[in-house]
Amino acid sequence: MSEPARDGHLVEQQVGREEPFAGNFLKVVRDTVRLPDGGRATREYIRHPGAVCIVGLTDDGQVVLERQWRHPVGRVMVELPAGKLDAGEAPLACARREPLEETGYTAREWAHAGVLHPCIGYSDEFIDIWFARGLTLGKRQLDAEEFLDVFLATPAQLLDWCLDGTVTDGKTLSCTLWLQNVLSGKRVLDWRGESGA
Amino acid sequence: MSEPARDGHLVEQQVGREEPFAGNFLKVVRDTVRLPDGGRATREYIRHPGAVCIVGLTDDGQVVLERQWRHPVGRVMVELPAGKLDAGEAPLACARREPLEETGYTAREWAHAGVLHPCIGYSDEFIDIWFARGLTLGKRQLDAEEFLDVFLATPAQLLDWCLDGTVTDGKTLSCTLWLQNVLSGKRVLDWRGESGA
Repeated sequence: MSEPARDGHLVEQQVGREEPFAGNFLKVVRDTVRLPDGGRATREYIRHPGAVCIVGLTDDGQVVLERQWRHPVGRVMVELPAGKLDAGEAPLACARREPLEETGYTAREWAHAGVLHPCIGYSDEFIDIWFARGLTLGKRQLDAEEFLDVFLATPAQLLDWCLDGTVTDGKTLSCTLWLQNVLSGKRVLDWRGESGA
Repeated sequence: MSEPARDGHLVEQQVGREEPFAGNFLKVVRDTVRLPDGGRATREYIRHPGAVCIVGLTDDGQVVLERQWRHPVGRVMVELPAGKLDAGEAPLACARREPLEETGYTAREWAHAGVLHPCIGYSDEFIDIWFARGLTLGKRQLDAEEFLDVFLATPAQLLDWCLDGTVTDGKTLSCTLWLQNVLSGKRVLDWRGESGA
């Protein structure tokens, strides 16, 4: 869909950058761009290292979910396991490491489903979506300051929660679209074993 | 899912707030919270007024989409029309005003589908999801500095684009989950006429 010849009337060119804020956690950049009509504008957004989100399926077909307090929205959210990439880390390496560690599960097989951009208005974050199956429950390894419940639900229950407003987390809603279409056979995944083969 | 008695071991209590950054567009707050174990932590996040996103259906069953440059992710994105709330504005009032204005369409009927939180790790943004039908094409009213293409696609085409990686915008992926389940009859919407009745 993004063909340069066709998109010239839409494309903005970066002509400058400031970094007006670097907090403990968030980093804001402010780019100056040349608009398609030659004008100038500024674009402020969050710089983010990227993340992974896991649709983990147990052998009896249930999905691994978490309940976790999310301070920005002031509530406990039902969501799929997710985690930020370390600098230079490949998404699959991160997927194997962080999000499942905090649930206690390890997976035998992985399949890449796609990528989503959660917040294109003001963040460069991407979330790489991985399905995992052949799960084994081991010991949970929570980072300091992490408090979360892990539980299982059927895909039908998760879909109901998405449609009735129980689940409002964007990445979980998006991943449930993939899950529904994987389970119906409309979207076929390319599963790979633990060795990456 | 969010029952206070059950969530006590997850809940963080805000005990302080700073506002370390207010840019042209982004506003960052830094809250100090008391963790479930009594410890302290800081939570930095973006304060956002909220937004609406529209699944607009034409009388022949097509969906209104946009192609727009999104500077934070450096590409032209295929997405559903969306717009930020003005201060104090009700979501339906915003839905009627901004996102469809920029496409040139007005709608006879509206139905609320749900809400999504696009970025629960570092933003308080919510996006209210509205379906619209009975569309009439009028004159487009773009804000200054807005450059976008408007086009129509069938729901089947949109779903294919979501599943093949053409669409990566989180709100559009999430709304396509609702669209698929509305069209299948699994999720029934409560349509209201132009008067709000």
